[in-house]
Amino acid sequence: MNMKTFRITTPDEALRPVLQNKIDNLNKPKGSMGRLEELALQIGLIQHTLSPELRHPCHLLFGADHGIEREGVSISPREITWQQMINFSRGGGGVNLFCRQHGFELFLIDMGVDYDLHSYPGIIDCKVARGTRNFLHEAAMTEEETDQCIETGARMVTECHKRGCNVVSIGEMGIGNTSPSSIWMHLLTGTPLEMCVGAGAGLNNTGIRHKYEILQSAVQRFRDHHPDLQDADVRSTRYATEVLRWFSGFEMTAAIGAMLRAAELGMVILVDGFIMTACMLMASRLYPAIRHYAVFCHEGDEAGHRRMLEALHARGLLQIGLRLGEGTGALCAYPLLQSAVRMLNEMNNFENAHITKYF
Amino acid sequence: MNMKTFRITTPDEALRPVLQNKIDNLNKPKGSMGRLEELALQIGLIQHTLSPELRHPCHLLFGADHGIEREGVSISPREITWQQMINFSRGGGGVNLFCRQHGFELFLIDMGVDYDLHSYPGIIDCKVARGTRNFLHEAAMTEEETDQCIETGARMVTECHKRGCNVVSIGEMGIGNTSPSSIWMHLLTGTPLEMCVGAGAGLNNTGIRHKYEILQSAVQRFRDHHPDLQDADVRSTRYATEVLRWFSGFEMTAAIGAMLRAAELGMVILVDGFIMTACMLMASRLYPAIRHYAVFCHEGDEAGHRRMLEALHARGLLQIGLRLGEGTGALCAYPLLQSAVRMLNEMNNFENAHITKYF
Repeated sequence: MNMKTFRITTPDEALRPVLQNKIDNLNKPKGSMGRLEELALQIGLIQHTLSPELRHPCHLLFGADHGIEREGVSISPREITWQQMINFSRGGGGVNLFCRQHGFELFLIDMGVDYDLHSYPGIIDCKVARGTRNFLHEAAMTEEETDQCIETGARMVTECHKRGCNVVSIGEMGIGNTSPSSIWMHLLTGTPLEMCVGAGAGLNNTGIRHKYEILQSAVQRFRDHHPDLQDADVRSTRYATEVLRWFSGFEMTAAIGAMLRAAELGMVILVDGFIMTACMLMASRLYPAIRHYAVFCHEGDEAGHRRMLEALHARGLLQIGLRLGEGTGALCAYPLLQSAVRMLNEMNNFENAHITKYF
Repeated sequence: MNMKTFRITTPDEALRPVLQNKIDNLNKPKGSMGRLEELALQIGLIQHTLSPELRHPCHLLFGADHGIEREGVSISPREITWQQMINFSRGGGGVNLFCRQHGFELFLIDMGVDYDLHSYPGIIDCKVARGTRNFLHEAAMTEEETDQCIETGARMVTECHKRGCNVVSIGEMGIGNTSPSSIWMHLLTGTPLEMCVGAGAGLNNTGIRHKYEILQSAVQRFRDHHPDLQDADVRSTRYATEVLRWFSGFEMTAAIGAMLRAAELGMVILVDGFIMTACMLMASRLYPAIRHYAVFCHEGDEAGHRRMLEALHARGLLQIGLRLGEGTGALCAYPLLQSAVRMLNEMNNFENAHITKYF
């Protein structure tokens, strides 16, 4: 394995009290803008300025199929992945309307959809293979495939950055991809597997039970193949990369590469729901400093999403019951980031507004 | 009392299954757009169409002072009301930046600020008096003042409607106005007073205790003056109007008039935090059908706000810890309404997207 490395630095903490002081002197009761104040502080630190700006927002949507889908772990059939990719390329999906609403440039990237999409305009062909292997039996990806996905994700972000983008949102399309997400959560945070498995796009209780049993077997197979990996190693890079390679999807691995590169470039990263939170969890095990660049945008109803956010010491900005994927939760939260930035840049302080400072 | 009457109708329920069917056939797992689906349904019903539109959004900010402020129930001094009104008129407040961000036309209305504001451009002079009377001792408003506030609020909405507006957001500026809100909640819902009193803009525990005691005395004085009003009457119009007149603020009464007129005109009403929720509660006791037109935008941390929403069978769209007032919570939630409307109008359905309908 020859995974690309990233230089991700922690934002300069020296600016924190200066930013906090600016926020506290805006003409409002201290703390009365709630989470917008937290966002303003975070974005100011990321951009190392008292007057941050959000420029040329981009949304990367990575699509791919999953070997594990063959085990009936999702209510949706495999063909939905390619059908939706084509639908997105024509502008008719959920992700499209939110990108239009909030002014995001959309990149649709085929990382490994089980269908020939190369003739469809608007879909960027980065196909690794027509779906991963089935991780119930073997590693989902080879080392080379893993490296390739990380590099592709990183390259897409470099492309956005060249266009002037400093805030990137990442989404996915891949039937079956709550399964690897649940396993990552289980193996990386130690949460019992049954607390990590949920309904995905809409499984009933029998479906969830079946999914749980399949994933339990898959985890056992992984352990059998890795007698040398101990629980004590759980926070090691080697443990994380092995879990990644064995269970990941091509689109999820590309998302991780994109997140890592975005942090390296000092960009704000909008994190969507369960699957993208799992990718950020994985990314943070490879490079802990990435956490400073992540804005967790949506807290979904998927079992375990809240717990996974807790493991990351995070709360989602929105709780509006989305479970569509595609990055829609990240896009819907974007106006709150814009509000936070406007607050820092446009709101008067007590002095220039001629208002009695009351506490 | 000669309060203006309103003709508020319940939206035609016959459209509900047709709208629901349209939503269910959009290319997404059923229900996967969460609260956006509920919003789409509500807005479609209000506008009686499968393809709703949000046009020329307006924000009405009513300002006034409160006699009860003299009892030290707020951490902020009275002068903040007029200082902030002037600040808003110059574009430097929280409400201004959110109006600019989301394209709202802002109307600043002086309903009874304790300062001469008539020479300030951009502030509409509808002053009733320089603050209400102190409801610890007497009714805050006369019958004539109550009627005048209701009519002014209604007239402002008529003005918005003439400009093509079909969605109105309402906010307030009035130091001390969580106090009447808490009392309304107590008297209209039967919730014990101590569960209705919170920190307002930032009281500490001693301050909250003092506020509670003052409000408890005020409620007792009201009861002493109304030996004929029984608890059994609590849902009657007469009970509501007496509570309104005794405890209200000019800005709150105008907000109620605005809400009632907006519902009469079939407009979407964005309801902000604790104070505006109290106004919607009062409005719904006068005209229960108004509830269909209300979108509750923010669920704050003010003690009792969640309980008041529960009494209205509502949940706030955002929970981002705002406690600024001015209608900022309503404005911050507006993009979610736009998302809901776009979903209905722009998202492909399973048929035209050529996607297998999977459930």
